[in-house]
Amino acid sequence: MTTQTITVNRDVKAELKAQAAAMREQFRERGTLVVNIVSSPGAGKTTLLEATARYWKGKHRIAVLVGDLATDRDAERLAPWVPVRQLTTGGACHLELPLVKKGFEALGMDDLEILFIENIGNLVCPSSHDLSEHLRIVLLSTTEGDDKPGKYPGMFRSSHAMVLSKTDLLPYVPFSPDQATDDARLIQPDLDAFQVCALTGDGVAEWCDYLLRKREEMLTQ
Amino acid sequence: MTTQTITVNRDVKAELKAQAAAMREQFRERGTLVVNIVSSPGAGKTTLLEATARYWKGKHRIAVLVGDLATDRDAERLAPWVPVRQLTTGGACHLELPLVKKGFEALGMDDLEILFIENIGNLVCPSSHDLSEHLRIVLLSTTEGDDKPGKYPGMFRSSHAMVLSKTDLLPYVPFSPDQATDDARLIQPDLDAFQVCALTGDGVAEWCDYLLRKREEMLTQ
Repeated sequence: MTTQTITVNRDVKAELKAQAAAMREQFRERGTLVVNIVSSPGAGKTTLLEATARYWKGKHRIAVLVGDLATDRDAERLAPWVPVRQLTTGGACHLELPLVKKGFEALGMDDLEILFIENIGNLVCPSSHDLSEHLRIVLLSTTEGDDKPGKYPGMFRSSHAMVLSKTDLLPYVPFSPDQATDDARLIQPDLDAFQVCALTGDGVAEWCDYLLRKREEMLTQ
Repeated sequence: MTTQTITVNRDVKAELKAQAAAMREQFRERGTLVVNIVSSPGAGKTTLLEATARYWKGKHRIAVLVGDLATDRDAERLAPWVPVRQLTTGGACHLELPLVKKGFEALGMDDLEILFIENIGNLVCPSSHDLSEHLRIVLLSTTEGDDKPGKYPGMFRSSHAMVLSKTDLLPYVPFSPDQATDDARLIQPDLDAFQVCALTGDGVAEWCDYLLRKREEMLTQ
């Protein structure tokens, strides 16, 4: 039998919360909108970011911090299009602020318009971790079922917008975009909603315009 | 500032591990194969269990414990086909043994051939929780991308078999079953692999035969 005594002398949660708020304000002062992208594994976060980076190539200063438990495949996919740093958690189920801070410092880019953070594919745990983002975007792919907002309420409640991804598969799957949106807005009435097929480019322009509009709103706050 | 002292007087992990092992042996003695089904949200756990229950209706004594953070939609879907109890974690990202034990007692069925546990949709956290199962099955849907085993190695390493689900969508998505299987077997060389489309029934017979074979193996151990 193991006996273990742990003494916690600080309110770690409150400290992280204050750090996240301070970083968020610093990013705002620099003109950098921070966007935290969350979803189930395989919902299309990297593909959406690829499409976004291609759409804006040469036009806007953006970068990506991409989180994974293992491998740097996502960073490899994004590298031709956008400055990127891989954050590898070594098994942890969500990103945390100190790793994001380290990644941002490694990027060495103080003049970004938008910094994207691609979180670990997980519709539960990342919801309770503030990464200093101004916007949290939840992707829901049409192949996951339109019942997911009600089943994973924490993530949808804490998000600013929902992107319905893989809309090219709508003819082949039992999924109602209206049902998913209604379900999500029962939980978060102010949720913005988009439909995007990153593979074909459908909806990418609207998504990108939304981000620029949100950045303008932040700058005039 | 909050100061908090936590004293852990027991090795909680070792206790749970011993409990799980004891329950696994009890289930074996009763002739009940316990199958823990894990996957990303929306990979098709409930649909596979519906198809399994329909295929076996009236032929085998099975039951399902279905886990969710919130709602009892999955239990409602399964109830017409199979005895079921909903386990609601109230936000927690994985099932734990005490809740499974409670659910099994609530079922009140000591003579089951197979007890299925449908875990929370999460490809990370459930991997480190032993629910007293004899078999852990990971579902990977063809819409999630064939790179997932390498990116979520903990789950594939701890599983006995992988079910590639939603094979009806293969013509429409960039997914190679061979690539996914090879990738998974780099991590877990003994992994059994199946392709199933639960909506059309393709592969359901092979999947069901596999479970019965595994139960026979358990009984002759």
